[in-house]
Amino acid sequence: MKFSRSSLSMLLAWTCSHVNLATAQCGNSTSPPVNYGMVLFPSFQALDVFGPLDILNMLSLSHPMNLYLIAATLDPVSTAAMSASMNPLNSNFSESIVPTHTFADPPPDLDVLIVPGGLGTRAPAPRLDELIGFIRDVYPSLEYLISVCTGAGLVARAGVLDGRNATTNKRAWAQTVAHGPATNWIGRARWVVDENVWTSSGVSAGMDATLAWVAAVFGEEQADSLALGMEYERVSDPSNDPFADYWGVEDVPPVRVPLE
Amino acid sequence: MKFSRSSLSMLLAWTCSHVNLATAQCGNSTSPPVNYGMVLFPSFQALDVFGPLDILNMLSLSHPMNLYLIAATLDPVSTAAMSASMNPLNSNFSESIVPTHTFADPPPDLDVLIVPGGLGTRAPAPRLDELIGFIRDVYPSLEYLISVCTGAGLVARAGVLDGRNATTNKRAWAQTVAHGPATNWIGRARWVVDENVWTSSGVSAGMDATLAWVAAVFGEEQADSLALGMEYERVSDPSNDPFADYWGVEDVPPVRVPLE
Repeated sequence: MKFSRSSLSMLLAWTCSHVNLATAQCGNSTSPPVNYGMVLFPSFQALDVFGPLDILNMLSLSHPMNLYLIAATLDPVSTAAMSASMNPLNSNFSESIVPTHTFADPPPDLDVLIVPGGLGTRAPAPRLDELIGFIRDVYPSLEYLISVCTGAGLVARAGVLDGRNATTNKRAWAQTVAHGPATNWIGRARWVVDENVWTSSGVSAGMDATLAWVAAVFGEEQADSLALGMEYERVSDPSNDPFADYWGVEDVPPVRVPLE
Repeated sequence: MKFSRSSLSMLLAWTCSHVNLATAQCGNSTSPPVNYGMVLFPSFQALDVFGPLDILNMLSLSHPMNLYLIAATLDPVSTAAMSASMNPLNSNFSESIVPTHTFADPPPDLDVLIVPGGLGTRAPAPRLDELIGFIRDVYPSLEYLISVCTGAGLVARAGVLDGRNATTNKRAWAQTVAHGPATNWIGRARWVVDENVWTSSGVSAGMDATLAWVAAVFGEEQADSLALGMEYERVSDPSNDPFADYWGVEDVPPVRVPLE
Protein backbone atom coordinates (compact mmCIF):
# COMPACT_ATOMS: atom_id res chain seq x y z
CA MET A 1 0.00 0.00 0.00
CA LYS A 2 1.39 3.34 -0.97
CA PHE A 3 0.52 6.69 0.58
CA SER A 4 1.12 10.04 -1.01
CA ARG A 5 2.79 12.65 1.20
CA SER A 6 -0.55 14.43 1.31
CA SER A 7 -2.41 11.30 2.47
CA LEU A 8 0.18 10.57 5.15
CA SER A 9 0.00 14.13 6.42
CA MET A 10 -3.79 14.04 6.61
CA LEU A 11 -3.69 10.64 8.33
CA LEU A 12 -1.21 12.00 10.86
CA ALA A 13 -3.36 15.06 11.55
CA TRP A 14 -6.44 12.88 11.98
CA THR A 15 -4.60 10.46 14.26
CA CYS A 16 -3.17 13.26 16.37
CA SER A 17 -6.59 14.81 16.82
CA HIS A 18 -8.26 11.50 17.77
CA VAL A 19 -5.60 9.61 19.71
CA ASN A 20 -3.81 10.79 22.83
CA LEU A 21 -0.25 10.52 21.57
CA ALA A 22 2.74 12.30 23.04
CA THR A 23 3.01 15.75 21.50
CA ALA A 24 6.39 15.00 19.95
CA GLN A 25 4.76 12.36 17.77
CA CYS A 26 2.20 14.88 16.62
CA GLY A 27 4.73 17.66 16.34
CA ASN A 28 7.58 18.12 13.94
CA SER A 29 9.10 14.67 14.10
CA THR A 30 7.40 13.83 10.79
CA SER A 31 7.26 16.04 7.74
CA PRO A 32 4.81 18.91 8.06
CA PRO A 33 4.05 21.25 5.14
CA VAL A 34 6.90 23.42 3.95
CA ASN A 35 5.64 25.54 1.04
CA TYR A 36 2.80 28.02 1.69
CA GLY A 37 1.02 30.26 -0.78
CA MET A 38 -1.23 33.24 -0.11
CA VAL A 39 -3.24 34.65 -2.99
CA LEU A 40 -3.60 38.43 -3.18
CA PHE A 41 -6.06 40.55 -5.16
CA PRO A 42 -6.96 44.25 -5.16
CA SER A 43 -9.04 45.28 -2.13
CA PHE A 44 -8.20 42.23 -0.02
CA GLN A 45 -9.00 42.45 3.70
CA ALA A 46 -5.72 43.13 5.53
CA LEU A 47 -6.42 41.00 8.61
CA ASP A 48 -7.58 38.04 6.48
CA VAL A 49 -4.02 37.94 5.17
CA PHE A 50 -1.94 39.09 8.12
CA GLY A 51 -3.78 37.32 10.94
CA PRO A 52 -2.85 33.88 9.54
CA LEU A 53 0.52 35.08 8.25
CA ASP A 54 1.62 36.56 11.58
CA ILE A 55 1.01 33.16 13.16
CA LEU A 56 2.88 31.38 10.37
CA ASN A 57 5.70 33.96 10.37
CA MET A 58 6.37 33.01 14.00
CA LEU A 59 5.98 29.29 13.30
CA SER A 60 8.57 29.60 10.53
CA LEU A 61 11.22 30.54 13.11
CA SER A 62 11.05 26.99 14.53
CA HIS A 63 10.11 25.01 11.39
CA PRO A 64 11.53 25.23 7.87
CA MET A 65 8.86 27.02 5.83
CA ASN A 66 8.64 29.08 2.65
CA LEU A 67 6.00 31.66 1.78
CA TYR A 68 4.89 32.69 -1.71
CA LEU A 69 2.59 35.67 -2.28
CA ILE A 70 0.73 35.09 -5.54
CA ALA A 71 -1.13 37.74 -7.53
CA ALA A 72 -2.10 38.66 -11.09
CA THR A 73 1.15 40.61 -11.60
CA LEU A 74 4.28 41.36 -9.56
CA ASP A 75 3.06 44.92 -8.88
CA PRO A 76 2.25 45.66 -5.23
CA VAL A 77 -1.34 44.73 -4.35
CA SER A 78 -3.37 47.28 -2.41
CA THR A 79 -6.10 47.01 0.20
CA ALA A 80 -7.67 50.18 -1.24
CA ALA A 81 -11.37 50.03 -2.06
CA MET A 82 -11.91 49.22 -5.72
CA SER A 83 -14.58 51.78 -6.40
CA ALA A 84 -15.70 55.21 -5.28
CA SER A 85 -18.98 53.77 -4.05
CA MET A 86 -17.09 51.65 -1.51
CA ASN A 87 -15.05 54.66 -0.34
CA PRO A 88 -17.59 57.49 -0.48
CA LEU A 89 -15.46 59.96 1.53
CA ASN A 90 -12.46 59.44 -0.74
CA SER A 91 -10.16 58.38 2.10
CA ASN A 92 -6.59 57.65 1.09
CA PHE A 93 -6.06 54.84 3.56
CA SER A 94 -4.53 51.59 2.35
CA GLU A 95 -1.49 49.35 2.36
CA SER A 96 0.32 47.66 -0.54
CA ILE A 97 2.01 44.28 -0.37
CA VAL A 98 4.69 43.00 -2.75
CA PRO A 99 3.86 39.66 -4.47
CA THR A 100 6.57 37.10 -5.17
CA HIS A 101 4.82 35.14 -7.94
CA THR A 102 1.98 35.40 -10.43
CA PHE A 103 -0.96 33.13 -11.19
CA ALA A 104 0.58 32.56 -14.64
CA ASP A 105 3.97 31.64 -13.18
CA PRO A 106 3.24 30.24 -9.74
CA PRO A 107 5.72 28.62 -7.34
CA PRO A 108 6.18 24.85 -7.75
CA ASP A 109 5.22 22.31 -5.11
CA LEU A 110 2.81 24.33 -2.96
CA ASP A 111 1.71 22.34 0.09
CA VAL A 112 -0.77 24.85 1.57
CA LEU A 113 -2.78 27.59 -0.12
CA ILE A 114 -4.53 30.35 1.83
CA VAL A 115 -7.34 32.35 0.21
CA PRO A 116 -8.33 35.62 1.94
CA GLY A 117 -11.52 37.61 1.48
CA GLY A 118 -12.42 41.26 1.35
CA LEU A 119 -14.40 43.71 -0.74
CA GLY A 120 -12.25 42.69 -3.72
CA THR A 121 -14.13 39.39 -3.91
CA ARG A 122 -17.07 41.44 -5.22
CA ALA A 123 -15.14 42.62 -8.29
CA PRO A 124 -16.78 42.01 -11.68
CA ALA A 125 -16.32 38.32 -12.46
CA PRO A 126 -13.77 38.58 -15.29
CA ARG A 127 -11.27 40.29 -12.96
CA LEU A 128 -11.24 37.25 -10.70
CA ASP A 129 -11.27 34.55 -13.38
CA GLU A 130 -7.50 34.03 -13.38
CA LEU A 131 -7.35 33.79 -9.57
CA ILE A 132 -10.27 31.35 -9.45
CA GLY A 133 -8.71 29.30 -12.24
CA PHE A 134 -5.46 29.16 -10.27
CA ILE A 135 -7.26 27.84 -7.18
CA ARG A 136 -9.03 25.23 -9.33
CA ASP A 137 -5.81 24.13 -10.99
CA VAL A 138 -3.59 23.96 -7.90
CA TYR A 139 -6.04 22.41 -5.43
CA PRO A 140 -5.55 18.75 -6.50
CA SER A 141 -1.83 18.93 -5.65
CA LEU A 142 -2.23 20.70 -2.28
CA GLU A 143 -2.03 19.12 1.14
CA TYR A 144 -4.33 21.78 2.57
CA LEU A 145 -6.44 24.69 1.42
CA ILE A 146 -7.48 27.32 3.99
CA SER A 147 -9.93 30.12 3.24
CA VAL A 148 -10.61 33.14 5.41
CA CYS A 149 -13.81 35.19 5.42
CA THR A 150 -15.35 35.75 1.98
CA GLY A 151 -12.36 33.93 0.47
CA ALA A 152 -14.68 30.91 0.74
CA GLY A 153 -16.69 32.44 -2.11
CA LEU A 154 -13.63 32.34 -4.36
CA VAL A 155 -12.91 28.73 -3.36
CA ALA A 156 -16.55 27.85 -4.05
CA ARG A 157 -16.37 29.46 -7.48
CA ALA A 158 -13.34 27.26 -8.18
CA GLY A 159 -15.55 24.22 -7.50
CA VAL A 160 -13.47 23.10 -4.51
CA LEU A 161 -16.39 23.36 -2.08
CA ASP A 162 -18.81 21.27 -4.17
CA GLY A 163 -20.19 18.53 -1.93
CA ARG A 164 -18.31 19.85 1.10
CA ASN A 165 -19.19 21.40 4.45
CA ALA A 166 -17.95 25.00 4.74
CA THR A 167 -18.52 28.35 6.39
CA THR A 168 -17.76 31.99 5.61
CA ASN A 169 -18.19 35.59 6.81
CA LYS A 170 -21.47 36.01 8.70
CA ARG A 171 -22.26 39.59 7.65
CA ALA A 172 -21.67 38.75 3.98
CA TRP A 173 -23.38 35.34 4.35
CA ALA A 174 -26.11 35.51 1.72
CA GLN A 175 -24.01 36.84 -1.14
CA THR A 176 -21.11 34.49 -0.37
CA VAL A 177 -23.03 31.21 0.00
CA ALA A 178 -24.72 32.01 -3.32
CA HIS A 179 -21.36 31.18 -4.94
CA GLY A 180 -21.53 27.60 -3.63
CA PRO A 181 -24.90 26.04 -4.53
CA ALA A 182 -23.46 22.53 -4.11
CA THR A 183 -21.97 23.29 -0.68
CA ASN A 184 -23.43 22.52 2.75
CA TRP A 185 -22.96 25.93 4.42
CA ILE A 186 -22.78 25.73 8.21
CA GLY A 187 -24.02 28.87 9.96
CA ARG A 188 -22.80 28.47 13.51
CA ALA A 189 -19.10 27.84 12.98
CA ARG A 190 -15.94 29.80 13.74
CA TRP A 191 -14.39 27.48 11.15
CA VAL A 192 -15.23 24.21 9.37
CA VAL A 193 -12.89 21.36 8.39
CA ASP A 194 -13.82 19.03 5.53
CA GLU A 195 -10.97 16.66 4.69
CA ASN A 196 -8.12 18.97 3.71
CA VAL A 197 -10.24 22.09 3.19
CA TRP A 198 -10.50 24.54 6.08
CA THR A 199 -12.93 27.45 5.78
CA SER A 200 -13.15 30.16 8.43
CA SER A 201 -15.78 32.70 9.33
CA GLY A 202 -15.16 36.46 8.96
CA VAL A 203 -11.86 38.35 9.25
CA SER A 204 -10.50 37.65 12.76
CA ALA A 205 -11.80 34.05 12.61
CA GLY A 206 -8.91 33.37 10.25
CA MET A 207 -6.56 33.55 13.24
CA ASP A 208 -8.53 30.93 15.17
CA ALA A 209 -8.80 28.67 12.12
CA THR A 210 -5.07 28.98 11.49
CA LEU A 211 -4.22 28.21 15.12
CA ALA A 212 -6.57 25.20 14.99
CA TRP A 213 -4.86 24.07 11.79
CA VAL A 214 -1.44 24.47 13.45
CA ALA A 215 -2.78 22.41 16.37
CA ALA A 216 -3.92 19.64 14.01
CA VAL A 217 -0.74 19.56 11.95
CA PHE A 218 2.03 20.69 14.35
CA GLY A 219 0.41 19.80 17.70
CA GLU A 220 -1.73 21.57 20.30
CA GLU A 221 1.30 22.63 22.29
CA GLN A 222 2.70 24.50 19.30
CA ALA A 223 -0.61 26.30 18.69
CA ASP A 224 -0.94 27.29 22.35
CA SER A 225 2.64 28.52 22.40
CA LEU A 226 2.03 30.75 19.36
CA ALA A 227 -1.20 32.14 20.86
CA LEU A 228 0.60 32.90 24.15
CA GLY A 229 3.39 34.63 22.28
CA MET A 230 0.94 36.86 20.47
CA GLU A 231 -1.10 37.37 23.68
CA TYR A 232 -4.17 36.09 21.90
CA GLU A 233 -7.05 34.28 23.61
CA ARG A 234 -7.79 31.85 20.83
CA VAL A 235 -11.21 30.36 20.22
CA SER A 236 -10.49 26.63 20.24
CA ASP A 237 -14.11 25.43 19.93
CA PRO A 238 -15.20 25.76 16.30
CA SER A 239 -18.88 25.97 17.32
CA ASN A 240 -18.22 29.03 19.50
CA ASP A 241 -19.65 31.61 17.12
CA PRO A 242 -21.71 34.43 18.65
CA PHE A 243 -21.63 36.25 15.33
CA ALA A 244 -23.90 33.65 13.72
CA ASP A 245 -26.69 34.82 16.05
CA TYR A 246 -25.79 38.47 15.77
CA TRP A 247 -25.91 38.45 11.98
CA GLY A 248 -28.87 36.04 11.96
CA VAL A 249 -27.43 33.44 9.61
CA GLU A 250 -28.82 29.95 9.13
CA ASP A 251 -27.45 26.77 7.61
CA VAL A 252 -27.79 26.61 3.84
CA PRO A 253 -27.89 23.05 2.48
CA PRO A 254 -26.72 22.22 -1.02
CA VAL A 255 -29.39 22.70 -3.67
CA ARG A 256 -27.68 20.37 -6.11
CA VAL A 257 -25.20 17.56 -5.66
CA PRO A 258 -22.27 17.49 -8.05
CA LEU A 259 -21.90 14.49 -10.34
CA GLU A 260 -19.49 11.86 -9.06
CA MET B 1 -9.30 80.91 26.60
CA LYS B 2 -7.91 79.26 23.54
CA PHE B 3 -7.77 75.51 22.87
CA SER B 4 -5.56 73.89 20.30
CA ARG B 5 -7.24 71.31 18.07
CA SER B 6 -5.34 68.67 20.02
CA SER B 7 -6.60 69.93 23.39
CA LEU B 8 -10.18 70.10 22.15
CA SER B 9 -9.97 66.59 20.78
CA MET B 10 -8.60 65.24 24.06
CA LEU B 11 -11.24 67.14 26.03
CA LEU B 12 -13.94 65.67 23.82
CA ALA B 13 -12.57 62.15 24.25
CA TRP B 14 -12.43 62.60 28.03
CA THR B 15 -15.93 64.03 28.16
CA CYS B 16 -17.34 61.25 26.02
CA SER B 17 -15.76 58.60 28.23
CA HIS B 18 -17.02 60.17 31.48
CA VAL B 19 -20.42 61.64 30.62
CA ASN B 20 -23.38 59.80 29.18
CA LEU B 21 -23.87 61.86 26.03
CA ALA B 22 -25.73 60.75 22.96
CA THR B 23 -23.36 58.87 20.68
CA ALA B 24 -23.73 61.40 17.92
CA GLN B 25 -22.12 64.04 20.10
CA CYS B 26 -19.23 61.70 20.75
CA GLY B 27 -19.11 60.51 17.19
CA ASN B 28 -18.14 62.32 14.04
CA SER B 29 -20.10 65.52 14.54
CA THR B 30 -16.87 67.22 15.65
CA SER B 31 -13.51 66.87 13.96
CA PRO B 32 -11.79 63.57 14.66
CA PRO B 33 -8.21 62.88 13.50
CA VAL B 34 -7.68 62.69 9.76
CA ASN B 35 -3.98 62.00 9.14
CA TYR B 36 -2.50 58.75 10.43
CA GLY B 37 1.09 57.57 10.29
CA MET B 38 2.48 54.08 10.85
CA VAL B 39 6.24 53.69 11.22
CA LEU B 40 7.82 50.63 9.61
CA PHE B 41 11.25 49.09 10.20
CA PRO B 42 12.88 45.80 9.14
CA SER B 43 11.55 42.78 11.04
CA PHE B 44 8.39 44.46 12.31
CA GLN B 45 5.66 42.18 13.70
CA ALA B 46 2.98 41.85 11.01
CA LEU B 47 -0.05 41.80 13.33
CA ASP B 48 1.23 44.83 15.29
CA VAL B 49 0.81 46.76 12.05
CA PHE B 50 -2.17 45.10 10.39
CA GLY B 51 -4.36 44.51 13.45
CA PRO B 52 -4.74 48.26 14.04
CA LEU B 53 -4.67 49.08 10.32
CA ASP B 54 -7.42 46.62 9.40
CA ILE B 55 -9.66 48.37 11.94
CA LEU B 56 -8.70 51.80 10.64
CA ASN B 57 -9.00 50.68 6.99
CA MET B 58 -12.66 49.89 7.71
CA LEU B 59 -13.18 53.08 9.70
CA SER B 60 -11.83 55.08 6.75
CA LEU B 61 -14.80 53.96 4.63
CA SER B 62 -17.11 56.03 6.84
CA HIS B 63 -14.75 58.85 7.92
CA PRO B 64 -12.31 60.90 5.82
CA MET B 65 -8.87 59.55 6.74
CA ASN B 66 -5.41 59.41 5.22
CA LEU B 67 -2.67 56.87 5.98
CA TYR B 68 1.07 57.39 5.63
CA LEU B 69 3.53 54.50 5.97
CA ILE B 70 6.85 55.95 7.09
CA ALA B 71 10.21 54.17 6.92
CA ALA B 72 13.93 54.85 6.49
CA THR B 73 13.65 54.64 2.68
CA LEU B 74 10.88 54.10 0.12
CA ASP B 75 12.02 50.51 -0.44
CA PRO B 76 9.55 47.83 0.68
CA VAL B 77 10.00 46.93 4.35
CA SER B 78 10.07 43.24 5.24
CA THR B 79 8.95 41.26 8.24
CA ALA B 80 11.89 38.89 7.68
CA ALA B 81 14.08 38.15 10.69
CA MET B 82 17.11 40.41 10.72
CA SER B 83 19.69 37.78 11.56
CA ALA B 84 20.37 34.09 11.06
CA SER B 85 20.23 33.54 14.82
CA MET B 86 16.57 34.64 14.83
CA ASN B 87 15.77 32.34 11.89
CA PRO B 88 17.90 29.27 12.59
CA LEU B 89 16.16 27.03 10.03
CA ASN B 90 16.63 29.59 7.26
CA SER B 91 12.91 29.82 6.48
CA ASN B 92 12.02 32.12 3.61
CA PHE B 93 8.76 33.33 5.08
CA SER B 94 8.03 37.05 5.15
CA GLU B 95 5.97 39.87 3.69
CA SER B 96 7.10 43.26 2.35
CA ILE B 97 5.09 46.47 2.64
CA VAL B 98 5.52 49.58 0.49
CA PRO B 99 6.18 52.81 2.44
CA THR B 100 4.77 56.12 1.28
CA HIS B 101 7.16 58.46 3.11
CA THR B 102 10.55 58.53 4.82
CA PHE B 103 11.65 59.73 8.24
CA ALA B 104 13.73 62.39 6.46
CA ASP B 105 10.75 63.56 4.38
CA PRO B 106 7.68 62.75 6.46
CA PRO B 107 4.07 63.70 5.71
CA PRO B 108 2.95 67.05 7.10
CA ASP B 109 0.28 67.46 9.73
CA LEU B 110 0.15 63.99 11.23
CA ASP B 111 -2.62 63.70 13.81
CA VAL B 112 -1.98 60.13 14.98
CA LEU B 113 1.22 58.08 14.95
CA ILE B 114 1.25 54.31 15.50
CA VAL B 115 4.47 52.56 16.50
CA PRO B 116 4.54 48.76 16.13
CA GLY B 117 6.96 46.32 17.72
CA GLY B 118 8.67 43.14 16.66
CA LEU B 119 12.09 41.53 16.65
CA GLY B 120 13.38 44.54 14.70
CA THR B 121 13.17 46.64 17.86
CA ARG B 122 16.22 44.64 19.02
CA ALA B 123 18.39 45.86 16.15
CA PRO B 124 21.72 47.48 17.05
CA ALA B 125 20.94 50.97 18.34
CA PRO B 126 22.32 53.02 15.42
CA ARG B 127 19.91 51.33 13.00
CA LEU B 128 16.96 52.67 14.97
CA ASP B 129 18.32 56.16 15.73
CA GLU B 130 16.55 57.85 12.83
CA LEU B 131 13.21 56.20 13.65
CA ILE B 132 13.50 57.12 17.33
CA GLY B 133 14.51 60.68 16.42
CA PHE B 134 11.43 60.91 14.19
CA ILE B 135 9.14 59.83 17.04
CA ARG B 136 10.81 62.39 19.34
CA ASP B 137 10.47 65.18 16.81
CA VAL B 138 6.89 64.54 15.71
CA TYR B 139 5.32 63.73 19.07
CA PRO B 140 4.76 67.35 20.23
CA SER B 141 2.55 68.06 17.21
CA LEU B 142 0.48 64.85 17.40
CA GLU B 143 -3.01 64.50 18.78
CA TYR B 144 -2.36 60.88 19.72
CA LEU B 145 0.48 58.39 19.80
CA ILE B 146 -0.37 54.67 19.94
CA SER B 147 2.26 51.97 20.47
CA VAL B 148 1.73 48.25 20.02
CA CYS B 149 3.76 45.51 21.71
CA THR B 150 7.50 46.24 21.97
CA GLY B 151 6.91 49.45 20.02
CA ALA B 152 6.63 50.96 23.52
CA GLY B 153 10.40 50.45 23.84
CA LEU B 154 10.96 52.69 20.79
CA VAL B 155 8.59 55.32 22.19
CA ALA B 156 10.40 55.12 25.55
CA ARG B 157 13.75 55.59 23.84
CA ALA B 158 12.32 58.72 22.21
CA GLY B 159 11.65 60.08 25.72
CA VAL B 160 7.89 60.21 25.18
CA LEU B 161 7.15 57.81 28.06
CA ASP B 162 9.23 59.68 30.66
CA GLY B 163 6.98 60.32 33.67
CA ARG B 164 4.09 58.40 32.11
CA ASN B 165 2.19 55.20 32.83
CA ALA B 166 2.64 52.61 30.09
CA THR B 167 2.62 48.91 29.26
CA THR B 168 4.18 46.64 26.66
CA ASN B 169 4.58 43.01 25.52
CA LYS B 170 4.50 40.64 28.49
CA ARG B 171 6.92 38.02 27.17
CA ALA B 172 9.49 40.69 26.26
CA TRP B 173 8.73 42.67 29.45
CA ALA B 174 12.15 42.91 31.10
CA GLN B 175 14.13 43.95 28.03
CA THR B 176 11.47 46.44 26.92
CA VAL B 177 10.85 48.24 30.23
CA ALA B 178 14.63 48.66 30.53
CA HIS B 179 14.31 51.26 27.75
CA GLY B 180 12.06 53.43 29.95
CA PRO B 181 13.69 53.96 33.34
CA ALA B 182 11.56 57.06 33.96
CA THR B 183 8.29 55.26 33.10
CA ASN B 184 5.76 53.70 35.46
CA TRP B 185 5.30 50.33 33.75
CA ILE B 186 1.98 48.67 34.54
CA GLY B 187 2.10 44.88 34.42
CA ARG B 188 -1.55 43.86 34.36
CA ALA B 189 -2.88 45.89 31.46
CA ARG B 190 -4.17 45.01 28.01
CA TRP B 191 -3.42 48.67 27.29
CA VAL B 192 -2.70 51.89 29.19
CA VAL B 193 -3.81 55.44 28.42
CA ASP B 194 -1.80 58.40 29.71
CA GLU B 195 -3.10 61.68 28.30
CA ASN B 196 -2.68 61.29 24.54
CA VAL B 197 -0.30 58.33 24.68
CA TRP B 198 -1.79 54.84 24.33
CA THR B 199 0.47 51.83 24.87
CA SER B 200 -0.75 48.29 24.30
CA SER B 201 0.46 44.92 25.45
CA GLY B 202 1.79 42.32 23.00
CA VAL B 203 0.81 41.77 19.37
CA SER B 204 -2.96 41.06 19.34
CA ALA B 205 -3.51 43.58 22.16
CA GLY B 206 -2.97 46.27 19.55
CA MET B 207 -6.41 45.44 18.15
CA ASP B 208 -8.11 45.92 21.52
CA ALA B 209 -6.19 49.15 22.18
CA THR B 210 -7.12 50.47 18.75
CA LEU B 211 -10.79 49.60 19.22
CA ALA B 212 -10.72 51.28 22.66
CA TRP B 213 -9.11 54.32 21.07
CA VAL B 214 -11.81 54.34 18.36
CA ALA B 215 -14.41 54.12 21.15
CA ALA B 216 -12.88 57.11 22.95
CA VAL B 217 -12.51 59.26 19.86
CA PHE B 218 -15.31 58.11 17.50
CA GLY B 219 -17.74 56.63 20.04
CA GLU B 220 -18.44 53.19 21.55
CA GLU B 221 -21.03 52.41 18.91
CA GLN B 222 -18.45 52.86 16.15
CA ALA B 223 -15.95 50.59 17.91
CA ASP B 224 -18.56 47.89 18.52
CA SER B 225 -19.68 48.09 14.91
CA LEU B 226 -16.12 47.59 13.64
CA ALA B 227 -15.55 44.64 16.01
CA LEU B 228 -18.81 43.03 14.86
CA GLY B 229 -17.83 43.51 11.23
CA MET B 230 -14.52 41.77 11.79
CA GLU B 231 -16.20 39.09 13.97
CA TYR B 232 -13.83 39.95 16.78
CA GLU B 233 -14.69 39.58 20.49
CA ARG B 234 -12.86 42.65 21.70
CA VAL B 235 -11.43 42.98 25.18
CA SER B 236 -13.00 46.20 26.42
CA ASP B 237 -11.64 46.10 30.00
CA PRO B 238 -8.01 47.24 29.94
CA SER B 239 -7.25 45.32 33.17
CA ASN B 240 -8.33 42.02 31.58
CA ASP B 241 -4.85 40.64 30.97
CA PRO B 242 -4.31 36.93 31.67
CA PHE B 243 -0.92 37.13 29.96
CA ALA B 244 0.50 39.23 32.81
CA ASP B 245 0.10 36.20 35.09
CA TYR B 246 1.20 33.72 32.47
CA TRP B 247 4.43 35.55 31.75
CA GLY B 248 4.85 36.50 35.42
CA VAL B 249 5.36 40.22 34.97
CA GLU B 250 5.17 42.79 37.76
CA ASP B 251 4.81 46.54 37.84
CA VAL B 252 8.07 48.42 37.36
CA PRO B 253 8.03 51.92 38.90
CA PRO B 254 10.23 54.69 37.54
CA VAL B 255 13.74 54.68 38.97
CA ARG B 256 14.35 58.32 38.13
CA VAL B 257 12.01 61.22 37.52
CA PRO B 258 12.83 63.42 34.56
CA LEU B 259 13.67 67.05 35.23
CA GLU B 260 10.74 69.40 34.76
